[in-house]
Amino acid sequence: MVKEFFYPKTIAVIGATADPKKFGNAVTVNLLENDQLESEIFPINPKSTEILGLKSYSSILEVDKEVDLAILLVPSKAVSLVVDQCIEKLVKRIIIVSAGFGEINEEGKKIEQEMTNKAHEKGIRIIGPNCVGIMNVDLGMNASFVLTPPKGNVSIVTQSGSFGAACLYDMKWQGLGFSKFANLGNMADINLTDVLEFFKEDENSKVVCIYLENVVDGRKFYETMKEVSKTKPTIILKGGRTAYGASAAASHTGSIATDYSSLKAAIKQSGATLCESMSDYVAAIKAFSFLPLPDGNRVGILTNSGGSAVLFSDYAEEYGLELADFSKGFKEKIAPYIIPLVKKVNPLDLIAGANGETYYQVTKAMLEDPNIDIVVPCAVIPTFLGMTLDEHYSGVIRAWNETVRKKPIIPIFLSGELLEKTKELAEKEQAPVFMSPREAAFAVKVLIDRMKKLQK
Amino acid sequence: MVKEFFYPKTIAVIGATADPKKFGNAVTVNLLENDQLESEIFPINPKSTEILGLKSYSSILEVDKEVDLAILLVPSKAVSLVVDQCIEKLVKRIIIVSAGFGEINEEGKKIEQEMTNKAHEKGIRIIGPNCVGIMNVDLGMNASFVLTPPKGNVSIVTQSGSFGAACLYDMKWQGLGFSKFANLGNMADINLTDVLEFFKEDENSKVVCIYLENVVDGRKFYETMKEVSKTKPTIILKGGRTAYGASAAASHTGSIATDYSSLKAAIKQSGATLCESMSDYVAAIKAFSFLPLPDGNRVGILTNSGGSAVLFSDYAEEYGLELADFSKGFKEKIAPYIIPLVKKVNPLDLIAGANGETYYQVTKAMLEDPNIDIVVPCAVIPTFLGMTLDEHYSGVIRAWNETVRKKPIIPIFLSGELLEKTKELAEKEQAPVFMSPREAAFAVKVLIDRMKKLQK
Repeated sequence: MVKEFFYPKTIAVIGATADPKKFGNAVTVNLLENDQLESEIFPINPKSTEILGLKSYSSILEVDKEVDLAILLVPSKAVSLVVDQCIEKLVKRIIIVSAGFGEINEEGKKIEQEMTNKAHEKGIRIIGPNCVGIMNVDLGMNASFVLTPPKGNVSIVTQSGSFGAACLYDMKWQGLGFSKFANLGNMADINLTDVLEFFKEDENSKVVCIYLENVVDGRKFYETMKEVSKTKPTIILKGGRTAYGASAAASHTGSIATDYSSLKAAIKQSGATLCESMSDYVAAIKAFSFLPLPDGNRVGILTNSGGSAVLFSDYAEEYGLELADFSKGFKEKIAPYIIPLVKKVNPLDLIAGANGETYYQVTKAMLEDPNIDIVVPCAVIPTFLGMTLDEHYSGVIRAWNETVRKKPIIPIFLSGELLEKTKELAEKEQAPVFMSPREAAFAVKVLIDRMKKLQK
Repeated sequence: MVKEFFYPKTIAVIGATADPKKFGNAVTVNLLENDQLESEIFPINPKSTEILGLKSYSSILEVDKEVDLAILLVPSKAVSLVVDQCIEKLVKRIIIVSAGFGEINEEGKKIEQEMTNKAHEKGIRIIGPNCVGIMNVDLGMNASFVLTPPKGNVSIVTQSGSFGAACLYDMKWQGLGFSKFANLGNMADINLTDVLEFFKEDENSKVVCIYLENVVDGRKFYETMKEVSKTKPTIILKGGRTAYGASAAASHTGSIATDYSSLKAAIKQSGATLCESMSDYVAAIKAFSFLPLPDGNRVGILTNSGGSAVLFSDYAEEYGLELADFSKGFKEKIAPYIIPLVKKVNPLDLIAGANGETYYQVTKAMLEDPNIDIVVPCAVIPTFLGMTLDEHYSGVIRAWNETVRKKPIIPIFLSGELLEKTKELAEKEQAPVFMSPREAAFAVKVLIDRMKKLQK
């Protein structure tokens, strides 16, 4: 049902324009500029005959082919009429980007409900109004006015378009790629649960993320979330947890924010991963997108920065993680690679002089050790002793690759702009970097939580 | 007493070398490569006669001038002997970078105590051992083996060298500059309290930051912290808050971590700002380094991203902040600049089409409004409607400058790599950018807390 939105053979952009100062331009350009997209695009604009090199139509009724998806970017006053035309044309799916409905007042709510009802009579479904659009990155389809992210295994459904965009930008910056993106806006018709049902079946959606402010049918949402999280990590961030937040949400998507305490309990019971900040959200997505689940909960830490490992250890305890005890065999194994000053305790503080080779050897020893389930290589990137900016990370990844990425690694690299080279390598290797001890500890926690859930 | 470390006319680097694979090279290069530094440098190395273009000496005893500061980078076994030579030479201050003392075992603790006692007899003071060194960025003096940060008004004393370095790198990346940096390592002699006393008197240290794991004399530390925070914002992050963290700290600087619950109470009572994560720490530093204190606690929010403002509002409530009510006059004032769809409530959601001019006008109206004390301009950087990547931030800064930066602004810009242009402008304008709703809310909270403290 939702799938049809993501695989259209023909797409009409109603309100398409060559004027770069209009949203109708942004969506058209996003659709056209990806060479991979095979869908046929029909720009619709009563004032043009040609837009961005394509023939344009004065109305959708003039298009002589079937239209699978119509995207509406017309002024709010014109939306009802255009929806009527879409229904007459029997387009299969409609996305209403235009704002000015249920988020404004009761009158707007009534109008969006009427449009939905009329569409339903013909089996037509609607996303929006008041949204930025959707993407199927697998196909190179960006039917939205925000930037196209790189390809990957993460799919996101979000009530907030701009927050969804912010996530795309942040995740792109952190090397994460996407499969599907859906911003639902006012959810006059298609809601979170509908999209989750699609993500559940969609093969390329390996990690499912949700940003929500309110839930329409709590019971059904809960059941679906429970089903999805059986096979796919499902990560949730809720806006409007407090009275201030809920009041802001009300003017945002015209919805009354769902009570947080009961939702929180439901999310936990469903087996999904609940986050309470954007950094936790992105940390969890990174963990699930890049890493295998551990077989146990014992964490081994190596570091060139005592203080950073101390901070990680604090969060580790607060999140209920367990630090591994180093065995005699492990201590013997690493002895040749570390200087005598290093105490063989966990966290293993290799001191500032440790180089990429030390990181490689120690990470590998930890990854091969039967008493360690998760390896946390922590570093402040050195700018001395002739070391290169990415040799520590490179050593870690080499060890990880040689052990066929069987155990999760959570590399913490704390270095502001010095991180650039490391991030490049991470992107190339499709491996994660965590940029604070706290987010790293949270990532370990969510992996262990999921492992325990699946063991049940 | 500590001041002498930071203003040496002559500096001996014992263990200086041209070999880039040694710490003695990193420190010498850091001292030499800053043209601003006027201190005379004496490289000391028994195996050389010339190092990096400077005459070098086989021992400090051969230097024919008075030595104000000696920095030791010799193997741990040689440290005692070299300290004896420094005492014989009557150098004024000693920094022992070399590790392998109290952090290793009781024997090491004994040795570092003996060196300290002998030095004290001649009025000589020691920083270290097991540290990365110190900096006085005002003078261009980097007597450490980590990178030199830009100049600014932040001074930091840290027990962890690498964590201190990580903070420098992160703050540099966020546009923050430094005045003094001191890493104390094992604190065999000079401790946190001593450095705080110096920062208290030091004019360029406008914001004081501490990273600590243990406190030597709790009472004195408390009294000093209380004194410092009367005139300067004092920001504290404690490593080793938990049993895991404390155990990691023990092997890090050879110290037993101070019990957190009593320290926490003391810090709060002292009026200092307590942080429990690196991101909160940097957020607080940014707030105090860039911003004036507010006159009241009423927050006004403008945004092009509903979801982001919803998230900020959640943290605002959790941190006990107050959202301002918009007056009739304010609503009339902004009416010409916003589209009719925009509901005139706080947070003010300007919707995706808002441009730099809208941000300028609305931010300015908020800054001029007597019912708003703190302005939070929030944006997901748009990539559509022909808007430039920094026009929103630029509008905010223009409004802030025109109102002579009288009220604090907390700009939240969520945009991954799209943030580059904004960050450049922020650096140029010496203005902050916050990169998550949570850190922004924390920044507002610490400003309000300090305002209330000073009002008492």
